[in-house]
Amino acid sequence: MGVRLGALAQRLALELRGEPDCEISGVGTLESAGSDQLSFLANRRYRGQLQRTRAAAVILRPEDAVDCPVAALVSDNPYAAFARAAQWLHPPAPPRRGVHPTAVVDDGAEIHADAWVGPQTCIARGARVAARVQIGAGCILGEGVVIGEDSRLEARVTLCAGTRIGCRALIHPGVVIGADGFGIAEEKGRWLKVPQLGGVRIGDDVEIGANTTIDRGALEDTVLEDGVKLDNQIQIAHNVRVGAHTAIAGCTGIAGSARIGRRCSIGGGVGILGHLEIADDVSVTAMSLVTRSILRAGAYSSGMPLQPCRDWNRNLARLRHLDELVRRVALLERRQANDD
Amino acid sequence: MGVRLGALAQRLALELRGEPDCEISGVGTLESAGSDQLSFLANRRYRGQLQRTRAAAVILRPEDAVDCPVAALVSDNPYAAFARAAQWLHPPAPPRRGVHPTAVVDDGAEIHADAWVGPQTCIARGARVAARVQIGAGCILGEGVVIGEDSRLEARVTLCAGTRIGCRALIHPGVVIGADGFGIAEEKGRWLKVPQLGGVRIGDDVEIGANTTIDRGALEDTVLEDGVKLDNQIQIAHNVRVGAHTAIAGCTGIAGSARIGRRCSIGGGVGILGHLEIADDVSVTAMSLVTRSILRAGAYSSGMPLQPCRDWNRNLARLRHLDELVRRVALLERRQANDD
Amino acid sequence: MGVRLGALAQRLALELRGEPDCEISGVGTLESAGSDQLSFLANRRYRGQLQRTRAAAVILRPEDAVDCPVAALVSDNPYAAFARAAQWLHPPAPPRRGVHPTAVVDDGAEIHADAWVGPQTCIARGARVAARVQIGAGCILGEGVVIGEDSRLEARVTLCAGTRIGCRALIHPGVVIGADGFGIAEEKGRWLKVPQLGGVRIGDDVEIGANTTIDRGALEDTVLEDGVKLDNQIQIAHNVRVGAHTAIAGCTGIAGSARIGRRCSIGGGVGILGHLEIADDVSVTAMSLVTRSILRAGAYSSGMPLQPCRDWNRNLARLRHLDELVRRVALLERRQANDD
Repeated sequence: MGVRLGALAQRLALELRGEPDCEISGVGTLESAGSDQLSFLANRRYRGQLQRTRAAAVILRPEDAVDCPVAALVSDNPYAAFARAAQWLHPPAPPRRGVHPTAVVDDGAEIHADAWVGPQTCIARGARVAARVQIGAGCILGEGVVIGEDSRLEARVTLCAGTRIGCRALIHPGVVIGADGFGIAEEKGRWLKVPQLGGVRIGDDVEIGANTTIDRGALEDTVLEDGVKLDNQIQIAHNVRVGAHTAIAGCTGIAGSARIGRRCSIGGGVGILGHLEIADDVSVTAMSLVTRSILRAGAYSSGMPLQPCRDWNRNLARLRHLDELVRRVALLERRQANDD
Repeated sequence: MGVRLGALAQRLALELRGEPDCEISGVGTLESAGSDQLSFLANRRYRGQLQRTRAAAVILRPEDAVDCPVAALVSDNPYAAFARAAQWLHPPAPPRRGVHPTAVVDDGAEIHADAWVGPQTCIARGARVAARVQIGAGCILGEGVVIGEDSRLEARVTLCAGTRIGCRALIHPGVVIGADGFGIAEEKGRWLKVPQLGGVRIGDDVEIGANTTIDRGALEDTVLEDGVKLDNQIQIAHNVRVGAHTAIAGCTGIAGSARIGRRCSIGGGVGILGHLEIADDVSVTAMSLVTRSILRAGAYSSGMPLQPCRDWNRNLARLRHLDELVRRVALLERRQANDD
Repeated sequence: MGVRLGALAQRLALELRGEPDCEISGVGTLESAGSDQLSFLANRRYRGQLQRTRAAAVILRPEDAVDCPVAALVSDNPYAAFARAAQWLHPPAPPRRGVHPTAVVDDGAEIHADAWVGPQTCIARGARVAARVQIGAGCILGEGVVIGEDSRLEARVTLCAGTRIGCRALIHPGVVIGADGFGIAEEKGRWLKVPQLGGVRIGDDVEIGANTTIDRGALEDTVLEDGVKLDNQIQIAHNVRVGAHTAIAGCTGIAGSARIGRRCSIGGGVGILGHLEIADDVSVTAMSLVTRSILRAGAYSSGMPLQPCRDWNRNLARLRHLDELVRRVALLERRQANDD
């Protein structure tokens, strides 16, 4: 069930340089794609592979198209065009419907007749599952959980009581949404639990990676706005708000009540402290630490790239006395000024 | 089912400035609380919201009470007082009892008649579940697991063979306790598995956040003492010991055989190397790295706050040659001394 | 059911200094082992404990054997020898066989008659489970998953469609293998999903720690070669390749298309950016950040050990102006040169 290259070009609204009748049956990398597959060139790092490709056609930028040894689909944003092509060529499995006999669904839950509830899922009373929602094996939906149309829980997703998910969500295995936030109050050297009473509200078109955790709010809700994309093993604490179309890479942690703007890109392994604000259109590189609000759009860093141990240890030893070094320099300056 | 403000003040042993007959039905933030809700002011950052609050009453410090436009409950520790008030106003659901028909419970397991075993849990032989324990859906208890009275496994918690949990524990979804530690021995470029034979012993009043992992000891036990509070996605390696009433924020990792003292506060994303000791009453800020024992109480840091990329990259380039810079300064000093 | 020390020495091919008829029934630490237990001394940190040990025998290096107050088994690699001894003295439980009645196994899955499928597992069509494989409670195997002989899924492991696992794997609870990679393409301020079409291919003798996640490839496979050992809560992104016999400690994240060499040791909490290469035999210390390819074997670092907050904050303030400091030093140097 392939498509013709000409049809593909038309659907993607791209200029085609090559034979429109060529049949495309799938996608592949520049290195591995065969003569019935479509590839793409977006990252300049892989430009060397273009000359050797045996793909049927390649989606690439105008400036790269000149060198393309096979059919070219020309785009200013080849990766996005490729995403659309791949979505068309590899559509997801058609939705299933019904409730697996091993699922435990409370009588007080509303499951749409067009939704699918997989084996060994548990759905508590008051939950509402909309049309075409696909709930994979081993998921748990607590009381009052709401899931919007066409959302998909791959498998073993836990949505605690009061979690609300929008439409077209895609949630991967091991995700836990709506567990208690880390609310503890110190009293004479011991910790009192602060009851966590808020929920989690997730907009439309959100994707959440495997084993990511999103805590319920303490008093009000934790919120992910529309189009937010989260990678694996991210930790979102209580009362965080993530603005629309922000993407966050794996292993990042966001502390309580932080507010992240819209269209931000947060790298992997980043730490964001609580009770601060990040403006719209901010990007933060991997393993940076955000300790204060970021008020202006732009790119920010504090990740420390590695060196051979010997060099690093030497520099590190100096860094531990950097303040002293600055004082020594200041003294030199004063003496030099006196000498002059 | 509200309570009167006077009764609340009496129960919390706080001075009330305002009308004792006012009815309180719940808690809320300064910004959102309505005329039947109690709020609190603990973090100075939110003092500006006090003037505008429409809460029925606010728990706050004596020095803030002067400016309180509504009824005030005066406390030296408003957050702890608020925790107690919220616990009273929002009690947890009453415990359930019985065993769900879809649970798989080995005949050789002892489940107290007053405990609850939720749907699709598995309990192996030799496990002992005490009175009023609440085991949510999809939990797995291995052989010989012991859980003390009034503990609560929210859902999908895995307790491997030999894990012992004290009383009043609260364990959130996705937690794995008692999996093998990372014990491997190098031999001619390959890794041999070192059998992991110890267990995990967890004291009373411990809370463990979603998707946190605590490995079993290699030979002896991994131990969390009473009152330890762990946030989400923390990794505790084999043979670690965490002292009583220590709190650890999300995404922190602790390597094997580290011993953490009592009443410590460990920030998020911290790394603690193995085979070291941290004294009592130590606090470590977010994303710090502990490479040696900390012998004295106090606050410690190595987290690197971010800068705009341009500034950071410039400083970073210099840092990579810091040792050389120090030598240049030393040379300047020698020459200046000679000149004098 | 103990073994005699002489038999143990013979099996491990170690020199025995002591009574060969002594009966050994298990292993223990230097501090806790009793008179029928074997211990070891590998880490010099624990040498002080040797004098006080009451173990029946200790595996240790020749230079330490001189001081050993009990029987000694002499080895140049005591930890590896101990691993072998402990494997022998504490063999794993014998494999079970059959399919638990609560498991949901698709008719189109092939389960070897000598394999064990535990309670509340789900196995989809096309899956193939080889001889003696042990699948613990609550595991999920998607379509076409393949698991080689003698592999063991402890409990609650999720293998998404298309994951292939070799022989003798050991996979701990909460692991998710084969979930979608984080493939998103930006288009006018929104994110398009890039379909993830590759699989995950895992070699023989691989161990994977609790709650670790390994994403499927975007177009080709994510690959872990033979003998790779992963600790808990590691994140491996799409199209990563980890070379044979590489060991990675907990909480480390590896971004897309990174290629890690063979026999590498990666510390805990390390971040490795995407599209780069790490040579064979590289070791990276805890919490380092790899932003470029590492072309040569050796040890690398960028982890920043902590200091008391006061010292750290002072140094940090200077670091933020390090570039300026270097300029000041350069100016001093020029002026001094002029003065001479």
